[in-house]
Amino acid sequence: MDLSLDGLSRLLSRATALENQNPLERMRILAKRRVALLFYESSTRTRTSFELAAKGLGADTTLISSLSSSIEKGESLKDTGLTLRALGAEAIILRHNSSGSAWLLERETQLPVLNAGDGMHEHPTQALLDLRTILAHFDPATKTCRPDLNHLLELNKKPVILSDRSAAEGVEGPAFPFAVNAETLAGITVTIVGDILHSRVARSNMLLLPRFGARVILCGPPALLPELAAAAGPGISIERDFEAALAQSQAVMMLRIQAERLSGLQVDLEDYKVRYQLNEQRLATHAPAAIVLHPGPIIRGLELTAAVADGPQSVILEQVKNGVAIRMAVVERALTANAI
Amino acid sequence: MDLSLDGLSRLLSRATALENQNPLERMRILAKRRVALLFYESSTRTRTSFELAAKGLGADTTLISSLSSSIEKGESLKDTGLTLRALGAEAIILRHNSSGSAWLLERETQLPVLNAGDGMHEHPTQALLDLRTILAHFDPATKTCRPDLNHLLELNKKPVILSDRSAAEGVEGPAFPFAVNAETLAGITVTIVGDILHSRVARSNMLLLPRFGARVILCGPPALLPELAAAAGPGISIERDFEAALAQSQAVMMLRIQAERLSGLQVDLEDYKVRYQLNEQRLATHAPAAIVLHPGPIIRGLELTAAVADGPQSVILEQVKNGVAIRMAVVERALTANAI
Amino acid sequence: MDLSLDGLSRLLSRATALENQNPLERMRILAKRRVALLFYESSTRTRTSFELAAKGLGADTTLISSLSSSIEKGESLKDTGLTLRALGAEAIILRHNSSGSAWLLERETQLPVLNAGDGMHEHPTQALLDLRTILAHFDPATKTCRPDLNHLLELNKKPVILSDRSAAEGVEGPAFPFAVNAETLAGITVTIVGDILHSRVARSNMLLLPRFGARVILCGPPALLPELAAAAGPGISIERDFEAALAQSQAVMMLRIQAERLSGLQVDLEDYKVRYQLNEQRLATHAPAAIVLHPGPIIRGLELTAAVADGPQSVILEQVKNGVAIRMAVVERALTANAI
Repeated sequence: MDLSLDGLSRLLSRATALENQNPLERMRILAKRRVALLFYESSTRTRTSFELAAKGLGADTTLISSLSSSIEKGESLKDTGLTLRALGAEAIILRHNSSGSAWLLERETQLPVLNAGDGMHEHPTQALLDLRTILAHFDPATKTCRPDLNHLLELNKKPVILSDRSAAEGVEGPAFPFAVNAETLAGITVTIVGDILHSRVARSNMLLLPRFGARVILCGPPALLPELAAAAGPGISIERDFEAALAQSQAVMMLRIQAERLSGLQVDLEDYKVRYQLNEQRLATHAPAAIVLHPGPIIRGLELTAAVADGPQSVILEQVKNGVAIRMAVVERALTANAI
Repeated sequence: MDLSLDGLSRLLSRATALENQNPLERMRILAKRRVALLFYESSTRTRTSFELAAKGLGADTTLISSLSSSIEKGESLKDTGLTLRALGAEAIILRHNSSGSAWLLERETQLPVLNAGDGMHEHPTQALLDLRTILAHFDPATKTCRPDLNHLLELNKKPVILSDRSAAEGVEGPAFPFAVNAETLAGITVTIVGDILHSRVARSNMLLLPRFGARVILCGPPALLPELAAAAGPGISIERDFEAALAQSQAVMMLRIQAERLSGLQVDLEDYKVRYQLNEQRLATHAPAAIVLHPGPIIRGLELTAAVADGPQSVILEQVKNGVAIRMAVVERALTANAI
Repeated sequence: MDLSLDGLSRLLSRATALENQNPLERMRILAKRRVALLFYESSTRTRTSFELAAKGLGADTTLISSLSSSIEKGESLKDTGLTLRALGAEAIILRHNSSGSAWLLERETQLPVLNAGDGMHEHPTQALLDLRTILAHFDPATKTCRPDLNHLLELNKKPVILSDRSAAEGVEGPAFPFAVNAETLAGITVTIVGDILHSRVARSNMLLLPRFGARVILCGPPALLPELAAAAGPGISIERDFEAALAQSQAVMMLRIQAERLSGLQVDLEDYKVRYQLNEQRLATHAPAAIVLHPGPIIRGLELTAAVADGPQSVILEQVKNGVAIRMAVVERALTANAI
């Protein structure tokens, strides 16, 4: 899914159009098309989100998970993919523990393969839904993100008239609430906090957000965030002091902390929480107007407190909702030659 | 699901109406509605029964089981529920190992949550299907249960004309084969046998059956049935002597025995079988006209013999069938404001 | 599924007709019929293949796998089957680790039960799809199998007009590309290689292929192929020398090798590969015109090399495709009185 800025802009528009389309009309877009979900790692939200997105377009889905499949018998990813194609699958949504597996599977099967997370490498639809969430709260007038603003919620209140021919013929729906380009997020700073080293979510956001002009600050202890990370691309810097990073941010993306990983890296959990946990006071003092994102699942009381997760600045559940819209657009694009 | 007697009566009627409705018409009732099945414990019959009930009304179902989800990553029930809501779920069917979890999830998500078993606490749809099974075999003339009587099977032979508008407008179908109230089962004694202490099925039946006038006898050894249990409510008593209990019963509900639990409680399995196993001779001698229920899964040769399970007094498979009808009514009620 | 030769011939024809039918028309054949998939062993291709076949005919499917069911609570196969029937299942597709389980379940439930593999006993639909694959490459003129020939692919290019009434009234579609009988495969030799002793795939093929006149050679070391196996029926012989067997074969069926089983039988893996691995050179030298089959999952570099699996003589992915067609015909036959 190497999309141009223009392609990304159209994908965002298409997500909005699909989200607002009449469900029964929408289900004609991929009626009788077959999508396989191939999950080598367990997942609730990504799997369910893709499944609902594909079904929402009328596609038939089949789930192959590592718990009930030949995977354990040692069959290679290539052969599982070729088998799924021979069984009739027209696209594969893959979560796998190896970096590059989606690329490999696409090459071997010649089917569209959607990467639902490959090892510590990438999780592109997560970055797209994060982008959509940030944009929904972005106020072009003040060049800030505002928790009290949500263009998409407003859009959902208005009827959107979409031609039935839009998908098949590449006719676009309305643009994402506003047009986006390489300058759109200039002036916006997004801080990503936590275990950057092992996070495919961080990596995909570091690739995506700067393309729209956003500045990305990475924040965490050296064991989870090596100095080298700042070299990942333009617009990316490191700030070890969480409160200094917060003070510059319009959006804060908290990553999930795995306690067992910390102890393996000899990072003290209590010390980590003192330095990097996002709690109500820290947020109120240093970033009282920022939005708070988290890819989930969250562990309340670890990387963030319950008060922040449930508070007025949290957009975590909007991210989940945006994920379904983004994945509808991505699945449609994979299966429809002319879409987008 | 705190229903009045009147509400329960309408639920029973609605189950009958739905069971007799044309399947294609029935599938319009919840067409395109989204129901999530969230199962933290494994289950065949309850999960499949709810799934078929929801699909039978046209709803789309998504299964989230503890074996393939974020549950293992430590996400809280609350956050899983909020995520499911953000993904588009309009109701959640929950099986969980903690008492009160369904209540908690409903409070947190503000979605209708159907309790498919919460720890050792309750299993309300099981009690409703047990009630439906007992009522189907109940003869108001003689005030007894009769294995050879089944009002529902008779009803199924007659054409039932149901208005298509019934669900949406709350128009009722015909009453359950007959009207039910607080006196209906007066004179009926139901004996529940086995591990009462750990059984949510027993607990839900102890709450439900006396409301219709039935007397409930609890039977089992002290380790599985403390004296205190009789204090659970009106109409409930303890009888340690299985044969004395049988002699008073029109319905006998055998619970599943988990051999490993018995040994943990230092109850001797062979001694248990001598005292509490329901075998052909015991049934013929002491309750030759009673119906035999079991929530399943049954272990033949443990709590009851194969001859009893397959015998003419067994209504175990009718319970399974009644479960789908009850759960259609319950799922419809959860998702349709005016239904019932 | 004890079919006469004539019944098998009609089944093959029906598979072709269904494969070529318009998907939307095909989905009316079993609309609203309920099929349960009961899998006590994990499986990707067989489970997915049956599921897609049943869904392709419009049936609703429910998966019960040993990982998330009462199976682990000790419920008997009989009781699980009776429960599924009471829940509304009209046919059961069963994979189980005990020989004879499909037969047992059919007797107990009086439902049609399709055997998707029972222990080391049989896997009938696998043999049928193998037969279909061999026939598709069979040239009646030269009495050989030809990798470059595929009647079914050719058929798929032509429009096939099928009456909508065919299924309900037993009207046949066109015959399998040609008529088949007890002489059709006379002159064809199929070699089955590997762990014959433990293979239900081998057993089912040994029963099926000779009925159409094919000769079957079994090949493998004594630990995996006892002398007695040749006594399994007419037309079956043993040849320990793989290359001698290849030289006589028009079709080579490689079985999956489980390394841990070999070591349990004190068969040296490296020695096994030297003697029985199908590699490019061996194939080119001794059977340059044969087709290569494998029931999957394959382990590249063990029973066969990647070059052979992906080479021009391999029909492994065609087998997968043929499996869906065969299983549509088999599921239809189970649920439609007059079909075939």
